[in-house]
Amino acid sequence: MKHVIFGIALALLAIHGERAAAAEQSSPAESNVFGAPTPSISERGLTFTLRAPDAHSVQVAGGDGLGPGPFPMTKGADGTWSVTIPAAVPGFHYYWFVLDGVAVNDPSSETFFGYGKETSGVEVPESGADYYAITDVPHGDVREKRYFSKSTGGWRHAMVYTPPAYDKDLKARYPVLILQHGSGEDETGWTRQGKAQLILDNLIAAGKAKPMIVVMERGYAERVAAPPLKLGAGTPAVEVKAAFGKFEDLVVRDLIPTIDASYRTIPDREHRAMAGLSMGGMQTLFIALHHLDLFAYIGSLSGPIYPDLNSKQTLGSPQHSPFNTKTAYDGAFSNPSEFNSRVRLLWLGVGTAEPELFRTGIGAAVQSLKDAGVRVVYFESAGTAHEWQTWRRGLNDLVPRLFR
Amino acid sequence: MKHVIFGIALALLAIHGERAAAAEQSSPAESNVFGAPTPSISERGLTFTLRAPDAHSVQVAGGDGLGPGPFPMTKGADGTWSVTIPAAVPGFHYYWFVLDGVAVNDPSSETFFGYGKETSGVEVPESGADYYAITDVPHGDVREKRYFSKSTGGWRHAMVYTPPAYDKDLKARYPVLILQHGSGEDETGWTRQGKAQLILDNLIAAGKAKPMIVVMERGYAERVAAPPLKLGAGTPAVEVKAAFGKFEDLVVRDLIPTIDASYRTIPDREHRAMAGLSMGGMQTLFIALHHLDLFAYIGSLSGPIYPDLNSKQTLGSPQHSPFNTKTAYDGAFSNPSEFNSRVRLLWLGVGTAEPELFRTGIGAAVQSLKDAGVRVVYFESAGTAHEWQTWRRGLNDLVPRLFR
Repeated sequence: MKHVIFGIALALLAIHGERAAAAEQSSPAESNVFGAPTPSISERGLTFTLRAPDAHSVQVAGGDGLGPGPFPMTKGADGTWSVTIPAAVPGFHYYWFVLDGVAVNDPSSETFFGYGKETSGVEVPESGADYYAITDVPHGDVREKRYFSKSTGGWRHAMVYTPPAYDKDLKARYPVLILQHGSGEDETGWTRQGKAQLILDNLIAAGKAKPMIVVMERGYAERVAAPPLKLGAGTPAVEVKAAFGKFEDLVVRDLIPTIDASYRTIPDREHRAMAGLSMGGMQTLFIALHHLDLFAYIGSLSGPIYPDLNSKQTLGSPQHSPFNTKTAYDGAFSNPSEFNSRVRLLWLGVGTAEPELFRTGIGAAVQSLKDAGVRVVYFESAGTAHEWQTWRRGLNDLVPRLFR
Repeated sequence: MKHVIFGIALALLAIHGERAAAAEQSSPAESNVFGAPTPSISERGLTFTLRAPDAHSVQVAGGDGLGPGPFPMTKGADGTWSVTIPAAVPGFHYYWFVLDGVAVNDPSSETFFGYGKETSGVEVPESGADYYAITDVPHGDVREKRYFSKSTGGWRHAMVYTPPAYDKDLKARYPVLILQHGSGEDETGWTRQGKAQLILDNLIAAGKAKPMIVVMERGYAERVAAPPLKLGAGTPAVEVKAAFGKFEDLVVRDLIPTIDASYRTIPDREHRAMAGLSMGGMQTLFIALHHLDLFAYIGSLSGPIYPDLNSKQTLGSPQHSPFNTKTAYDGAFSNPSEFNSRVRLLWLGVGTAEPELFRTGIGAAVQSLKDAGVRVVYFESAGTAHEWQTWRRGLNDLVPRLFR
């Protein structure tokens, strides 16, 4: 299949141009590749199309927040399948086509790492929400930092946000937030899906947040050539703890020293925070509560709570013991007044439309902690599920509370 | 389709683990997503698999260098289609599956922007080629730089490589190479497909190249909300010139001032180079030869040559006038001795397995330039086509010649 790239790729752009004419009165999603008219957003909802003249069935399906799919698509005379689904809740939604039974990406969409693979995504604007918009304020850089990890025996790369002034005032030093993605995602999630860098840019420009460095790594740290991690909602807590322990080694032995050696950080616990979403929230509680010598600020966004990490309980098991502030996280909360004096912020958040597993587990832990006298900030995102809009809102609430 | 991301994504990793057992004696490509066993490389060749129990036909096809596909795949008893194709030439190759007539990505592969969309890619190791390997040398960062473009009326982002010492010696200033992708690709191409940052890291560590900043932008600069560009091999030269003129505006009015204001550059022509591959090479010759006040080093990797940019000739038209050093590029070469005194490097390269269109056009231009007394470096990549291995090798030859 020899060809001249120059010709083929631009012929493809020409096809996009023709398709655009058929999609009037609607706006292409900003998550589309350049020039692609669908997915598009109109008053009728979200429209998806796929040209597949020889396919037998095509559906669109997606992550939490897109709606109760899969949604069957209808084949037009020209071989293009399409469907318009009711407007999804605002924010970023993963989606994919099911083409004759196979989940495939939409060639019109950028891809975003989720579900352990590159996945299509659609950005649905939220009216009035400008905290993650790109605006005329100074912008930080997002860097890819390569480093060798002794704990895994291999090269890795972290994503590192440096704040807008970082390259101007070369004497200033900054606090550090380590910010982790969810299961099946990777180190690019918080910037590509979450727009964390724009949230930080806007908060810093408004004087609502301290300028800080944000570090995002891939939350898996098996040794090079080890078999892939096998964790799930049915994995006993003690095995989850063992797996998270490897990531803990990476964070403590490799990541923090690398960041402190490479960037102008303030390398002490009072200027270091850790937060994460879903699995990243679980990891944050696991790692930071074991290392109060390293972290003074701790945030978990929709992170499921394991009442007892030394048990064989699974995440969804109905026989969950209640959250016990004396024993949870190896006793980190057992002395509330000491905890309150050392930890500047403990922040837990959840979306009100998340599955019960998340809401009740997090809510119960927050109540227990408050009852025991542990100072904790609880945040709810109204109407959003286990999805990125919950975590964007959470980050926007969390970041202004750091390093105060 | 509600679900708990945590469980589903890791169940998927478990499936990968089982599939791995069936693919013994072969190595997963480094371009695979974490834990995916295929595509894999063995002595028998390159193996691709796709689970699609309900599909009627599946083929694998790809870019130049993968081989003369499409290659039909065979369905196994478990519904997984597979094929092993003869070993492709080493390097990076775009590929895709044709699933019941639709080109789709492989869920086991990372995606790479090419052909105007996110596309699967497979990295085939080249024995003995370590110039683009990640090795134990200091590594630069690759940054995403956001900026507002007056010439397009919108926000853009460039990728910026800063050399390893950039964050150590805060007084040093650096020369700048602007490095452009090919048609259908974007600003991520040179680092993700091309591994330009590793080539630079290795050359700088070996003392073969001067430390430099490398800037990569998307080579399209239509105004925001303008219809997508319609260019192709059949587009008259004068229309190509008009389109490139918009990118020229972006480079000259927006990109160079932004980079010089944001990073510690040496902001003069003696410390500024431009190079690009394919369409990016065409753009480099077009822009840099019109702005010798801005650039002293010029490189075109597999960039087609338009003998007369003011004509209505198309790229592939048989009635091409011969390359005329008096008139080409608006007379940039008309005074060879003056050109030689101003331009420190003119570098043209091509792969010996590229289509005739590229080889003869570039070769004829080089011969004409030499005959006229213009100093030019000509580079050939043995046995490689219009593909990334040609451009990695070209960059590795070009970069040591810059800023000497």
